[in-house]
Amino acid sequence: MKKIHIIGLGLLGGSFALALKKVFPDWEITGFDNDPEHMAMALEMGLISRKLEVPQEDTDAVILATPVDTLLGLLEKTLEQVGPNTLVMDFGSTKGQLCRQMATHPKRNQYLAVHPIAGTENSGPGAAAGNLFDGKVLIICEMEKTDIHLKGLAYDIFEAVNMKLRFMDPGDHDLHLAFVSHLSHVSSFVLGKTVLDKTKDEKNIFDMAGSGFASTVRLAKSSPAMWAPIFLENKENVLEAMDSYIEHLSQFRSMIAEGNVDGLNHEMLEANKIRDILDIKE
Amino acid sequence: MKKIHIIGLGLLGGSFALALKKVFPDWEITGFDNDPEHMAMALEMGLISRKLEVPQEDTDAVILATPVDTLLGLLEKTLEQVGPNTLVMDFGSTKGQLCRQMATHPKRNQYLAVHPIAGTENSGPGAAAGNLFDGKVLIICEMEKTDIHLKGLAYDIFEAVNMKLRFMDPGDHDLHLAFVSHLSHVSSFVLGKTVLDKTKDEKNIFDMAGSGFASTVRLAKSSPAMWAPIFLENKENVLEAMDSYIEHLSQFRSMIAEGNVDGLNHEMLEANKIRDILDIKE
Repeated sequence: MKKIHIIGLGLLGGSFALALKKVFPDWEITGFDNDPEHMAMALEMGLISRKLEVPQEDTDAVILATPVDTLLGLLEKTLEQVGPNTLVMDFGSTKGQLCRQMATHPKRNQYLAVHPIAGTENSGPGAAAGNLFDGKVLIICEMEKTDIHLKGLAYDIFEAVNMKLRFMDPGDHDLHLAFVSHLSHVSSFVLGKTVLDKTKDEKNIFDMAGSGFASTVRLAKSSPAMWAPIFLENKENVLEAMDSYIEHLSQFRSMIAEGNVDGLNHEMLEANKIRDILDIKE
Repeated sequence: MKKIHIIGLGLLGGSFALALKKVFPDWEITGFDNDPEHMAMALEMGLISRKLEVPQEDTDAVILATPVDTLLGLLEKTLEQVGPNTLVMDFGSTKGQLCRQMATHPKRNQYLAVHPIAGTENSGPGAAAGNLFDGKVLIICEMEKTDIHLKGLAYDIFEAVNMKLRFMDPGDHDLHLAFVSHLSHVSSFVLGKTVLDKTKDEKNIFDMAGSGFASTVRLAKSSPAMWAPIFLENKENVLEAMDSYIEHLSQFRSMIAEGNVDGLNHEMLEANKIRDILDIKE
């Protein structure tokens, strides 16, 4: 029997609690969320067995699943509260800044930096699903800095919930994520805002939107409280990705303006190659 | 018993043939596709009963479901080939230019301009599905210019396959579609190209892409042969939509660069309103 404590009982934290309960029914899963409504809902849904404001000293692992701008403070506080045999992990979507800030922390070897590539556009405990992590990739950064026994427990847990482990440098992680995740959130938020601004007084225009629009704009439903901190923590890479996107858009715009059919066809045929990549993933 | 002829047996034409067969099993549905492979596949799949290069003179309705840059020529040719009691409709995604070009055509009253808001990122007869049109919106432009009996047949057909009819000025159609459809195709094509360019030598970066990326980039799989003509036919409106999108992106970029959390939260909360609109549609 292990004791696991989860701080932040939203989509990720709540889903992870459900996944753990399924594979380890006898483990004790406690938790905390500083939004009283989410806290009450998490208890009511049975995501955790008990609310604890401070993790027990002999907790085996504490998971931090809160917005990235809260993680450093929470990590430092949690490492103070727990004993020497407790592992603390964060589920944050950016890893570079936190790993740098933790580099010289006296309890660095009790911390493991991970990022589960799992989520939906929904948030809060009500969006939690026990299969959210099933078959998904988990990125682990700087694993060599974590105590061998503590990271062993982490690997066992993630393999038990059927995640695929990948190891990566935090800087590479943040750069790549800017392109394959943060940029698509930007493009979707801004597409939603652009179209809403244009159609402000005539909402029935959305009658004319098909399933393609809904798919492209889906991420515009995502939580600002989660995403503003990600864009700012990963500012340098996100700006690089956005600049490249805006540059590509300007080129595409010129081709339309000039009636450059060959250029447009070439760009779109190149973009079509995304099909092979996504189909392999599916 | 009616005779229907469909030119262009791809996603839209093929799906419409299947939908007609389901509700009118005794009607004769003939067709043609100038891609020999698609023609053979359409016959093999039983989308149509017979290949006809020229519609029969007493065909009740001819449907043109080919790329928008081919429609004017095809429409003029078809109106020459058929008798005075045949209705000819096009399924094109832009309506302004074609309606203007047809304004003084001697057989204008045999033509009905329609646009079914239905489709997927796939193309060709293999992508056809009998339920593609079920419950979807059909936009009809300048219906007052079409003979009353001929358009009566059209309304009966579209209602039988369970479409929701909307009437609209072609200019309004093209402007609105630029924002709720053409722009999301541009944003998705260009997002796909931007990310592929960045990850050229390291395709395993897509391991780190979640379902959100797949959703945002789904339309990048769409057919260039269909979309280049749409962007060019609707150039003025598409450029207006793109300029507004690029302007919104630049503002969002500045907010990230300046660390303007309040501004970012405001933009994203506004974008979140797309949830209410899409949820009503679903």
